[in-house]
Amino acid sequence: MATYLEFTKPALEAEHKELLQKYNDLKALGLKLDMSRGKPSADQLNLSDDMLTNIPTLKDVFSDSGYDTRNYGVLEGLPECRKFFSDLLEVPVENIIIGGNASLRVMFDYITQCLLPNALDKGWLASGKPIKFLCPCPGYDRHFAILEYYGIEMLPIDMEDDGPNIEQIRAAIRDEQVKGMFCVPKYSNPTGCTYSDEKVKAIAALQPAAKDFRVIWDNAYLIHDLVEPEQGDKLLNIFPEAEKNGTEDMFIEVCSTSKITFSGAGISAIAASEKNIAAIKARMSKQFISNDKINQLRHIRFLKDVPTLMAHMAKHREIMAPKFAAVDAAFTEGFTDCGIATWSKPKGGYFINLDVMEGTARETVRLCAEAGVVLTAAGSPFPYGKDPKDSNIRVAPSFPPVEELKKCAEILVISAKLAAVEKLLAK
Amino acid sequence: MATYLEFTKPALEAEHKELLQKYNDLKALGLKLDMSRGKPSADQLNLSDDMLTNIPTLKDVFSDSGYDTRNYGVLEGLPECRKFFSDLLEVPVENIIIGGNASLRVMFDYITQCLLPNALDKGWLASGKPIKFLCPCPGYDRHFAILEYYGIEMLPIDMEDDGPNIEQIRAAIRDEQVKGMFCVPKYSNPTGCTYSDEKVKAIAALQPAAKDFRVIWDNAYLIHDLVEPEQGDKLLNIFPEAEKNGTEDMFIEVCSTSKITFSGAGISAIAASEKNIAAIKARMSKQFISNDKINQLRHIRFLKDVPTLMAHMAKHREIMAPKFAAVDAAFTEGFTDCGIATWSKPKGGYFINLDVMEGTARETVRLCAEAGVVLTAAGSPFPYGKDPKDSNIRVAPSFPPVEELKKCAEILVISAKLAAVEKLLAK
Repeated sequence: MATYLEFTKPALEAEHKELLQKYNDLKALGLKLDMSRGKPSADQLNLSDDMLTNIPTLKDVFSDSGYDTRNYGVLEGLPECRKFFSDLLEVPVENIIIGGNASLRVMFDYITQCLLPNALDKGWLASGKPIKFLCPCPGYDRHFAILEYYGIEMLPIDMEDDGPNIEQIRAAIRDEQVKGMFCVPKYSNPTGCTYSDEKVKAIAALQPAAKDFRVIWDNAYLIHDLVEPEQGDKLLNIFPEAEKNGTEDMFIEVCSTSKITFSGAGISAIAASEKNIAAIKARMSKQFISNDKINQLRHIRFLKDVPTLMAHMAKHREIMAPKFAAVDAAFTEGFTDCGIATWSKPKGGYFINLDVMEGTARETVRLCAEAGVVLTAAGSPFPYGKDPKDSNIRVAPSFPPVEELKKCAEILVISAKLAAVEKLLAK
Repeated sequence: MATYLEFTKPALEAEHKELLQKYNDLKALGLKLDMSRGKPSADQLNLSDDMLTNIPTLKDVFSDSGYDTRNYGVLEGLPECRKFFSDLLEVPVENIIIGGNASLRVMFDYITQCLLPNALDKGWLASGKPIKFLCPCPGYDRHFAILEYYGIEMLPIDMEDDGPNIEQIRAAIRDEQVKGMFCVPKYSNPTGCTYSDEKVKAIAALQPAAKDFRVIWDNAYLIHDLVEPEQGDKLLNIFPEAEKNGTEDMFIEVCSTSKITFSGAGISAIAASEKNIAAIKARMSKQFISNDKINQLRHIRFLKDVPTLMAHMAKHREIMAPKFAAVDAAFTEGFTDCGIATWSKPKGGYFINLDVMEGTARETVRLCAEAGVVLTAAGSPFPYGKDPKDSNIRVAPSFPPVEELKKCAEILVISAKLAAVEKLLAK
């Protein structure tokens, strides 16, 4: 069958008539569906409900390490939680700090710390010159929002199938005002790619002009496989590679249990060099006396150790994999042959990255919204929300039930095709 | 009986011999006691243990307002929690935001927000000139630590029996670089004083040269009475007074449940003007998606409403009041007549403010430490830890059991008297 680009005008008009009919029929259902954010479903949250009641009595509030988790203290987090993340991230315990319920806040705080004196030697703002940051994209909109909030200029770096374009990075970091880069190195948001060993080694070997350059290594999906972990992607541990290059101070790794236990009530962790941990703790000691240690205790009682964690993640996988499969099936059925769309088939993470015909992503998202399906705003995976090709759409299958998802995907397919045909007809 | 200052040298020498004997006897007990921080005792924490298990089942994770507290969302906090703090602080719900487990962090974050662009118009740092802050003292050492961390110059303001010296404040705020002031307006840390209506009105009427001047109104002990609330101090609500003067944007009020439920796992609240709430929320929206709503739900299920809260605080009072009484009794017994010490008799809060003979506070704290009693470092209630008179000691009776407290107070009394006599003899 011919692709839309090969269609004659009459064929396009016929297709348009048919698509519009289907679209209006779907719109008439008056659905209200949401595929906009990477929110776990209630089924996933239910998997951790033991955590609600695993501190049943007075004597249970004491950690194995001997702390009364209800009271002040233990700035860096419970030793058993630090051990847990040390095992998970393969970083020494002394290089781990437990954060609050949001790794996003850990990152926001660290960027803030870097801007001001006291964090590093003088702080990025000391020079008085504009600060720039590298943003592999498509990337995570909330990373970009932090930079935009602080007026940090975002420089897009092309995201390839195995990580960001290294040549572009090397060229950019010759500028001393380029102070850092955001990375989601495994099951990247939104493309789902995992950085190859070569890219990780290349990033570890970067020699930026800025001596206070920092890579925020947001390992949000480190164990969030959609396939058996053995078949899943493998990410090289950044720190041993960095140490080979003496660049360990350049990396701040974060992760959280937001998509492991409770999205609104998880715990996070920071892994960094001795020097960076000391600087972060110096600031933390002025911010609070401790994070919520009761919640840390609930987590360690529930997740126990890495094997227990991996068994727990298998339950998430059982819920998530069919949802990704349903969207992939709908895309395959709807987009095959028409030649206007390509999409990712990630082995993990929370997103499917859909590329529709250039110049039709915004219109596709608008049509979906009109038909009752909320998608992430077109362009949001790009700095300043500007997708140069207007072709990228981030699809988040985690939250809706499978039946709703199928409907969402069907509406998305019809909308993308309708937008494409309309654009072709307008030529 | 004559005071030490009236003693003859031989009388002082005899007193010294006797005190030294008592001190060495106490030291020989090899005690390890801590009166250094305002930490609730285990007995107090036990009062809230229902909160550990008051979300027992799946259906209980939904707030009355309809949110799944386990998932992302509700940036400003659960409506029922905002209503609770609205009733408590007598501020409209829309002027309340629920924070994390530490009001200290809320204050640190707000100061940080003010320093940088985006929070206010340009941020305090925009001028490039040094920033100054007013510090009524004796005051809270952790407030001063935030300012010191950021290199903000601290200007001491004399704390009087009914609040800070207003004339000193008015003179200081003529300087445009003076950007704010920290206040603990009720049962102040450490003097225990509550600001009089006159002082509150005067502070509400301040007209600083700096248009971005902010008063951090840390209402940490707002319901922490040591007497029946009817007999306790009353604090005028700052916001209606501010509105009379059009200064409502000048005040950021914070409080928390750290000394109501669990010190390490409570919730906090911010009360501020519409304009400030908008600026704080704009920043929060980049920091995280929500605070821990499960913990918010635990709190509202447990504390319910202000009457329930006040009944709960009565239980704290039953534990705290005898401790303050024990210290006061020991001070009365030990210090009467010798004329070297005065101390506060607060109706609430967490501290007794002890003033020993000028130039002997550090030595007194050192002697106590040698005898196994840890006190807050002398000078810490003053900017840069410098007590100009070296006479102030912050006593924190909350944590140790009464019997230990009596021992602590006895050792403190002997140490203070020994330090005084030694100083007088050295003349």
